[in-house]
Amino acid sequence: MIKPSIPKGTRDFGPVVVRKRQYIFQTIRETFELFGFQPLETPTMENLDTLTGKYGEEGDKLIFKILDNGDILGRAQQAKDSRELGILLCEKALRYDLTIPFARYVVMNQHELALPFKRYQMQPVWRADRPQKGRYREFYQCDADVVGSNSLLNEIELLLIYDTVFTRLKLDGYEVRINNRKILSALAEIIGKPALLTDITVAIDKLDKIGIGKVKEELQERGLAASEIAIIENFLGIEGNNEEKLQQLSTLFKDSPTGLKGIEELSYVLHTQPDAFKTTPILDVTLARGLNYYTGMIVEVKAPPAVKMGSIGGGGRYDDLTGLFGLPGLSGVGISFGVDRIYDVLEELQLFPAAAQQGTQVLFFNLDAQSSSVAFKLLMQLRNKGISSELFHEPSKMDKQMKYANKRNIPYVIIMGESEVQEQVVSVKNMVTGTQEKVKMADLADYNF
Amino acid sequence: MIKPSIPKGTRDFGPVVVRKRQYIFQTIRETFELFGFQPLETPTMENLDTLTGKYGEEGDKLIFKILDNGDILGRAQQAKDSRELGILLCEKALRYDLTIPFARYVVMNQHELALPFKRYQMQPVWRADRPQKGRYREFYQCDADVVGSNSLLNEIELLLIYDTVFTRLKLDGYEVRINNRKILSALAEIIGKPALLTDITVAIDKLDKIGIGKVKEELQERGLAASEIAIIENFLGIEGNNEEKLQQLSTLFKDSPTGLKGIEELSYVLHTQPDAFKTTPILDVTLARGLNYYTGMIVEVKAPPAVKMGSIGGGGRYDDLTGLFGLPGLSGVGISFGVDRIYDVLEELQLFPAAAQQGTQVLFFNLDAQSSSVAFKLLMQLRNKGISSELFHEPSKMDKQMKYANKRNIPYVIIMGESEVQEQVVSVKNMVTGTQEKVKMADLADYNF
Repeated sequence: MIKPSIPKGTRDFGPVVVRKRQYIFQTIRETFELFGFQPLETPTMENLDTLTGKYGEEGDKLIFKILDNGDILGRAQQAKDSRELGILLCEKALRYDLTIPFARYVVMNQHELALPFKRYQMQPVWRADRPQKGRYREFYQCDADVVGSNSLLNEIELLLIYDTVFTRLKLDGYEVRINNRKILSALAEIIGKPALLTDITVAIDKLDKIGIGKVKEELQERGLAASEIAIIENFLGIEGNNEEKLQQLSTLFKDSPTGLKGIEELSYVLHTQPDAFKTTPILDVTLARGLNYYTGMIVEVKAPPAVKMGSIGGGGRYDDLTGLFGLPGLSGVGISFGVDRIYDVLEELQLFPAAAQQGTQVLFFNLDAQSSSVAFKLLMQLRNKGISSELFHEPSKMDKQMKYANKRNIPYVIIMGESEVQEQVVSVKNMVTGTQEKVKMADLADYNF
Repeated sequence: MIKPSIPKGTRDFGPVVVRKRQYIFQTIRETFELFGFQPLETPTMENLDTLTGKYGEEGDKLIFKILDNGDILGRAQQAKDSRELGILLCEKALRYDLTIPFARYVVMNQHELALPFKRYQMQPVWRADRPQKGRYREFYQCDADVVGSNSLLNEIELLLIYDTVFTRLKLDGYEVRINNRKILSALAEIIGKPALLTDITVAIDKLDKIGIGKVKEELQERGLAASEIAIIENFLGIEGNNEEKLQQLSTLFKDSPTGLKGIEELSYVLHTQPDAFKTTPILDVTLARGLNYYTGMIVEVKAPPAVKMGSIGGGGRYDDLTGLFGLPGLSGVGISFGVDRIYDVLEELQLFPAAAQQGTQVLFFNLDAQSSSVAFKLLMQLRNKGISSELFHEPSKMDKQMKYANKRNIPYVIIMGESEVQEQVVSVKNMVTGTQEKVKMADLADYNF
């Protein structure tokens, strides 16, 4: 018999972890709903050709493909290499992110949807990445996106969703950092290398990790001259509060329509409803976000500096979300929550509320058939009051039942044997404080558990 | 450009459907929690050898396998047939049910778990069945199981979970039917053909669909003599209320220890806490449940006869749940909810409450930049009160905004332009009744939406 195991990069979530994760999901879900976003769920499997070519060459390699059932040997024999083999044998693949299925859904349902369509989606995705600490092959994404609206009101709303969720999770000290891709485009323009926008973005994206020295080296390798790199370094050095940064940007980009448009968008987002934010977004000109489909505002949420966790969420605006599937001209803007990292942050800062970790509240001990029959009726009374409770499954020694209560972290046990039944009372033991008191059976359902 | 589509047998769930499904899931989840069951989530992918051989030869063929990434062409060339090809190319497969992953989890975590372990699990599973009406390749299972306890109290608790869930879903007229596999074993024994237990069970299982005549034919084909078939027919004809049926069973099986044990178990389940049930379970000797791993009580929930839907849930006790993975001697008992069918039943009987279908409650019209800025502040007030609300994304014509509200089924719209802002009032229009009234801005958050 082989010792059972699970595939690397995947996880079982036991009761304690599921409850804590549910607390995060529920907080995010309620906030999405509060802001008028609507739930969507797409299939785990998509047609392979829906996914290929959407995530770059590297991404394609990380897509999990599902083997067709039936007679496939003949097809296999035609393959010339492993890549072709995958295409010949697999019609379907596992969802790689939530954005492409969302775009596919919008195109398939374009005639029924009320635009703008504001949807949220909280489902697992799969990537054949090399598993490592904090990186899994199966993980949840939680996305909210708006498609079919160019209004910057959506940007404000999405930033307020971050604000609301992290406020509700009682997370202090997180930062919402924003920038605008048009400003990075303008930067590439004013140094005269618009074609190098992606190279510049990718290099800037590494600033946090490798520092300005290495970024400059990389820019040089990517073909930029010293004078051009100096402009970028000057740009990356823009500091001060939001207003001061906007001011410096306006000077730098005074002749760039693209740059001024980006500044105007940032100003709108920061100035239109400033009082609505509990935590004001920070303009961060060094924010780049590697993926290259963003075209407007970009955002990233950073965990409180005390926990070394980096980004716990991010997003931005991308023009032409659905063009890939034949419906051009629809702009999209969205944000994503990094649930695994948020979990680790809340865990490290001990921010999970007790209620999020509580399963069974009350355990009735089972001392004999007759008293447990009475206990059962009380049990049903508690459940009718919404109190999660159990009766130990069989009469057995007190210490065995006590051990079960401890192992399960049940805060109250109720002990009742023959004499208690006769007196119509029970003993309620508080497992946290260790105190024990007699309570009349008739009053038990109103006891303050 | 290919028109986008999704794999056959899979479904997108749009907002309205997700909300209704959430209502079912949430009702079941809350009940599981109330009864002290704990949540478990296992990975979508299991190692292929965890799954193969657990669902019979037919089941093995229906498992979706995941193609290994990397260089696989060499391996493919060694395969002699399609079956072998799948094994050579795939280490992982999609979850086929929730029971085997549960057993695998229990064995892997046996030293940490408090027994009995009462777990629930609500996750999708995948089967390469031929898609047809009401049968999908991706569908959710909702299971509650207890492992590590022989106590019949668990059977009562699980039946009460059915009772509680369907009561909460306001489903009238459903039936919970129970039987005991030991009685079917005893039947095979008293006709002298214990080896034919599975054949007899499988034939009886079809009674509902094909009628007694065909069942008798099938029994004959499976090698039973006329006199033996007569005993089975007599058994299947047992009628009356639960007590009358128990009486007749006691007579029929008076010399069979196995039969008497089954009757004793049924009596215990029916007689121990009869008042706890809102809908008393019905003893049904013709209930067989095809799968052959059950060894004790079996249960099936039938939809109200008015909707022709058949079973909406089922389960039973099975000895030795975890033996397959090297941990023998642990008995299990569990139930399952058929969420897709429950959905169809609630839909047909119009039992989804309005609240389960409600997204955005209030839409603020956007008439111009200035008044919408005031609207935004009111919007945030409503959200702080927990009222799901939106501001239309841009100033546009009233009828366009009205159309959006209608398409989204938003029950209240709030109209405010320049003059309303000056007077500090808004117009609240009830989209259901068509009535419209002026409300002071200061009172809006307390309005009875």
